[in-house]
Amino acid sequence: MKQVNIALLGCGTVGSGVIELLQHNGALIEEQLHTKISVKRVLVRDVEKYSNLEIAGPVSFTDNFQEIIQDDDISVVVEVMGSADFARECIEQCFHHGKSVVSANKDLIADYGIPLLKLSNMKNVDFQFEASVAGGVPIVRAMYASLNSNRISEIIGIMNGTTNYILSQMTERGISYQQALEEAQAKGYAEADPTNDVSGYDAARKIAILGTLGFHAELTFRDVRVEGIEKITAEDIKHAAEMGYVIKLLAIARQDEEGISLNVHPGLIRKNHPLANVADAYNAICVRGNCVGDVMFYGAGAGSLPTASAVVSDLMNVVMHLNIGMTGQRNFVNHEAKLKSQDRISSPYYLRLMVKNSTGVLADTANVLATYGISIRSLIQKDETAEVAEVVLLIDSSADSIVQQALKKLESLACIYKIANAIRVIEV
Amino acid sequence: MKQVNIALLGCGTVGSGVIELLQHNGALIEEQLHTKISVKRVLVRDVEKYSNLEIAGPVSFTDNFQEIIQDDDISVVVEVMGSADFARECIEQCFHHGKSVVSANKDLIADYGIPLLKLSNMKNVDFQFEASVAGGVPIVRAMYASLNSNRISEIIGIMNGTTNYILSQMTERGISYQQALEEAQAKGYAEADPTNDVSGYDAARKIAILGTLGFHAELTFRDVRVEGIEKITAEDIKHAAEMGYVIKLLAIARQDEEGISLNVHPGLIRKNHPLANVADAYNAICVRGNCVGDVMFYGAGAGSLPTASAVVSDLMNVVMHLNIGMTGQRNFVNHEAKLKSQDRISSPYYLRLMVKNSTGVLADTANVLATYGISIRSLIQKDETAEVAEVVLLIDSSADSIVQQALKKLESLACIYKIANAIRVIEV
Repeated sequence: MKQVNIALLGCGTVGSGVIELLQHNGALIEEQLHTKISVKRVLVRDVEKYSNLEIAGPVSFTDNFQEIIQDDDISVVVEVMGSADFARECIEQCFHHGKSVVSANKDLIADYGIPLLKLSNMKNVDFQFEASVAGGVPIVRAMYASLNSNRISEIIGIMNGTTNYILSQMTERGISYQQALEEAQAKGYAEADPTNDVSGYDAARKIAILGTLGFHAELTFRDVRVEGIEKITAEDIKHAAEMGYVIKLLAIARQDEEGISLNVHPGLIRKNHPLANVADAYNAICVRGNCVGDVMFYGAGAGSLPTASAVVSDLMNVVMHLNIGMTGQRNFVNHEAKLKSQDRISSPYYLRLMVKNSTGVLADTANVLATYGISIRSLIQKDETAEVAEVVLLIDSSADSIVQQALKKLESLACIYKIANAIRVIEV
Repeated sequence: MKQVNIALLGCGTVGSGVIELLQHNGALIEEQLHTKISVKRVLVRDVEKYSNLEIAGPVSFTDNFQEIIQDDDISVVVEVMGSADFARECIEQCFHHGKSVVSANKDLIADYGIPLLKLSNMKNVDFQFEASVAGGVPIVRAMYASLNSNRISEIIGIMNGTTNYILSQMTERGISYQQALEEAQAKGYAEADPTNDVSGYDAARKIAILGTLGFHAELTFRDVRVEGIEKITAEDIKHAAEMGYVIKLLAIARQDEEGISLNVHPGLIRKNHPLANVADAYNAICVRGNCVGDVMFYGAGAGSLPTASAVVSDLMNVVMHLNIGMTGQRNFVNHEAKLKSQDRISSPYYLRLMVKNSTGVLADTANVLATYGISIRSLIQKDETAEVAEVVLLIDSSADSIVQQALKKLESLACIYKIANAIRVIEV
């Protein structure tokens, strides 16, 4: 039987999952490839830490990347370190030394995906990164190999498990954001510093990657406008539910004649939409193509073995290509991206206002909105007995810039204490 | 720019969709492939019928397959005729003449997929069939290229749009099976003779194909035990809803240490399961892998353009392979299938009994079930005032053969008029 030797860069959650999967499903993999995949070297920071690890076969741990790059026996490198800059350096060196690369690193792909793809093609090696978006959900290959006959107009998804877990708990149990976050931290779903997840940066990297693939455009993380879930309250979720909506952190890529927009923000979606029922730490992504219509992909967006599943399937594809001598043959085309001004993006909005509980407030509010050409779709007044009343509005689709102006004006009214929240309604 | 000439076998719903897609998205496709795909010949029964069809480019309609097979300019043939035997003959001839084939024909693949794949490999040509399962939903490529690192234990899905439309209408509006069927026929969702859909044969072909791919086993349509939705009543759906379930026509492939089972039958699934919310004519498929966990794919399972989307993406893959001279390199491995005895399949059951409205009936029923070691999970008695009472039971998981024996025994009791329905509960 043929053998392909590989190296891992990193041996954390994903790396150890890859080793476990290759051991556990080794026979199944060999049977399909007529080739044994063998982990020869693993790059780690602290070699000592791994000295007692029981791994079948002669795996050598090293803290010296040169041992890997100089080893001509290693034809594929699996990069599962995270962090963009060092990973990029390593991968470029791999390409220069004729080694194909599989990466699970969304930070890297969201920033340097296109230049790395170009370099890999030039050097006739493979570069695959299924696991960089939504862990085990096979969306990356679907974008470039199964939906590529379509002009894609929209990609919309729940791409961050941590925030979906927090929002699901708030929705199901009516608990506060703070309590849900603390529980998520206790369970290991959220990190001690949860910023990267709750502020939307993690999802932003994924939507930048999917936008790049779907629109054949050169997009990076910096093209995404990002807003997190920190301001969502249990009240918002309750009011949304009463109106038939669920609040999710959505990553959205859209393309129309004005250009491309990439956004991450909380959004209200109808309860009967497939995305609304994606609970806990699951991910789901809807893609709208001009021929296929809407397709959705759902699964575990993170975790050791689900992510390893995507990494190893990539690896199997690379090995097949090695076996027939056709690495580096990936077709891709990417144009400079024409971005649509964020001010021009329209959507209906959910507004929650804290107002003086007196006659005329609703009329004043409606008048201000009317001035900006904004119609009210529905209005609910809450806590009518208290001194401060809560008013919840759904307003019709309006351009972002107009809504922002209207909100500023509303806030200046004496009868309005505060715009407690303004959340987009996503009609899909 | 390079050009690849193709022929279509058939020009019905899918064939005309392929022509439309190639025209509409031609620029997008050429840009990715650096190759123009040109439809040169189309095989139809009645050439006359197509004489006035406006199609860009020099498309020639013919009723003579030999014109296509003898044309060395044609390197890929797209088979969208349906029907297994003539299609098989044509495809074998294509392979013998060095032509790659894309097929959307589930009847064909479910019966002859493996021998055709073997022949295509032997002849160094490509054979792709994404559209044979669930139209535009990209499940076939996912099975062999993205989930192939996993040992698959279960594939469960809604794979027939007609029956899902009928059941969705019955669920949403409380109408009868007959009324829903007639409406589906009026809207073109169901054919005049709906047998192939409502009896489950269409879904059975698709699950045979997915089982073949997922378990690397030689399975055909004949290995599927099929049961349709004809016996489902509005009452069953209502009772199921009260207990927190939805009734769907499910196609299920399972593998455990006893072997493989392939089944199509109506089943109760929990309302909060992602499959429960798949409405109208949509399809959805859940795959359970030992590393990835559960992943789901959702989208339009039929229709001209969604199906053409899958066909043309296959076609694009074939053209890429032609361009780098590597057709016929598909890895696949298929063992003889070890089938599990259907009697050994266990599941909880929903039972609806018509009984004499008198004391002791429930005790008698419970006693009979207890004799067979079957426990009752819940029991609801309906219409307690009428002479004939309706009893709805959920029984715990038991082997099929045991349940059948118990039902026979129950039916022999004087106090039980009829087993109105017995439907499996699928716990996923």
